[in-house]
Amino acid sequence: MTSNPAATLHEGTHRYSLRVYYEDTDAGGVVYHANYLRFAERARTEALRDLGVPHAEMTGQFGLMFMVRRVNLDYLAPARLDESLVVGTRALSVRAASVELHQGISRDGDAAALADVNILLVCVRVADGRPARIPPRWRDALMNMALTSRD
Amino acid sequence: MTSNPAATLHEGTHRYSLRVYYEDTDAGGVVYHANYLRFAERARTEALRDLGVPHAEMTGQFGLMFMVRRVNLDYLAPARLDESLVVGTRALSVRAASVELHQGISRDGDAAALADVNILLVCVRVADGRPARIPPRWRDALMNMALTSRD
Amino acid sequence: MTSNPAATLHEGTHRYSLRVYYEDTDAGGVVYHANYLRFAERARTEALRDLGVPHAEMTGQFGLMFMVRRVNLDYLAPARLDESLVVGTRALSVRAASVELHQGISRDGDAAALADVNILLVCVRVADGRPARIPPRWRDALMNMALTSRD
Amino acid sequence: MTSNPAATLHEGTHRYSLRVYYEDTDAGGVVYHANYLRFAERARTEALRDLGVPHAEMTGQFGLMFMVRRVNLDYLAPARLDESLVVGTRALSVRAASVELHQGISRDGDAAALADVNILLVCVRVADGRPARIPPRWRDALMNMALTSRD
Repeated sequence: MTSNPAATLHEGTHRYSLRVYYEDTDAGGVVYHANYLRFAERARTEALRDLGVPHAEMTGQFGLMFMVRRVNLDYLAPARLDESLVVGTRALSVRAASVELHQGISRDGDAAALADVNILLVCVRVADGRPARIPPRWRDALMNMALTSRD
Repeated sequence: MTSNPAATLHEGTHRYSLRVYYEDTDAGGVVYHANYLRFAERARTEALRDLGVPHAEMTGQFGLMFMVRRVNLDYLAPARLDESLVVGTRALSVRAASVELHQGISRDGDAAALADVNILLVCVRVADGRPARIPPRWRDALMNMALTSRD
Repeated sequence: MTSNPAATLHEGTHRYSLRVYYEDTDAGGVVYHANYLRFAERARTEALRDLGVPHAEMTGQFGLMFMVRRVNLDYLAPARLDESLVVGTRALSVRAASVELHQGISRDGDAAALADVNILLVCVRVADGRPARIPPRWRDALMNMALTSRD
Repeated sequence: MTSNPAATLHEGTHRYSLRVYYEDTDAGGVVYHANYLRFAERARTEALRDLGVPHAEMTGQFGLMFMVRRVNLDYLAPARLDESLVVGTRALSVRAASVELHQGISRDGDAAALADVNILLVCVRVADGRPARIPPRWRDALMNMALTSRD
């Protein structure tokens, strides 16, 4: 959404804003539980773009992509139609072929998390799905994010 | 869902059953309008399978696929959580590179349509998306469906 | 996305920007056909907000909502992962209890439409789904949009 | 899908079959990671129905529903378009107001899991979302499932 990382990165946490539409909700009147994973993916994609290392470039230049290997999701409070949400994304640890992120979803202007996502991404080759080393540019950007994250 | 076409084809109309889950609904308490297109696609896929001409085979053998070119959708009454729905699919007309289908969505055991879908599918090459003739096996199956359809 | 209608309204057409994520695509490598309806709904919601007449307010104050009654969708060219799209929304006609909109989806910076949506919305009571007159504030905003639309 | 529990319950594990359609996949050519949660929800709903204790009845009679409180998801291998999958659901533990389930997703006829889901459901009041005791009929059915589950 922005080309200026400073606007969305604060102490190592990237912030991505989104609105809840009918498509995101269910008959319980709240955001359908699986859709938090869609929100988290949008936020990760924009975080990489704002860090100057777009995911699409990693695929285009190296034939590599990040694949979700493990997700731990805590649902703390429901989000509702028309609410403005923020996804805060920060790197917990970066390894040769994987990165672990924390993504907290909250209402805009409210620190209390509605959902907490811990996610392990593995760098794989698009061609055969086998793990591969994260290219240096992506690794450095993610490590820099991890180092400046505040717990 | 069945390997016996007789069970699901009646006078040229293929019937596909499905259940409405939370994933399909929205905060209005009804099926989200875009999801009728998902139901219709499931039904078309199973109709081709039950006719003995699976879509995946057309892609595997000929590098061709049906792509949606036009959709006309009428929403007549809402469907709700946990309801059992039926999608009736019949061919309206078959041309060299396209087929027009009617798909009516109703409650199981109730003739009144909840939604009416008219859809134009074009046969295209997966490689470049260009239109191509429908292979004879698929064309014959669809034409046979069209001929036995009752209006 | 903005509180300044001038920024997004031009000659009666509202413009809403979005990015294509993995969640929006399918195994054909393109945006899944049903998802254009999700994009169109997001754009309608933001158009009403930017016009100063949020949909949520109509529900909150009057117990009314717009429901999709009919959709005509033409798919002209596929959209792909990571592309930046624009949905242009304009009112074609406004009646006592319904409004017809045109929504064109294109790539950012490219006038050629990828998909054309004509949609008929009916104003209904949330309580029982029965049609009702569009409240004056919403009617005026939509009529003003229709009058300044350029064909 | 069946009214005969015997057909789908084996040693405490409920089996639910589904097909992968275009709607379920993404541009990576595989099932989009969030959609495993949709598959798991369908399977849980049918498991309760097949056990004779439909979720909708718990809501209708007691104003209670199961809400997802925590999800742990491991992605072991990708599922692809047109594959026939099975979701095996069994209860790990049942408490006064919550139940923990294991749901394993695999290809039909292949024991190796593609995805492993551990999910904690809390019984809440629809009216205010507050936790409540699981009604005896549902508790007994789930406990019986847990007791006959084989690890």
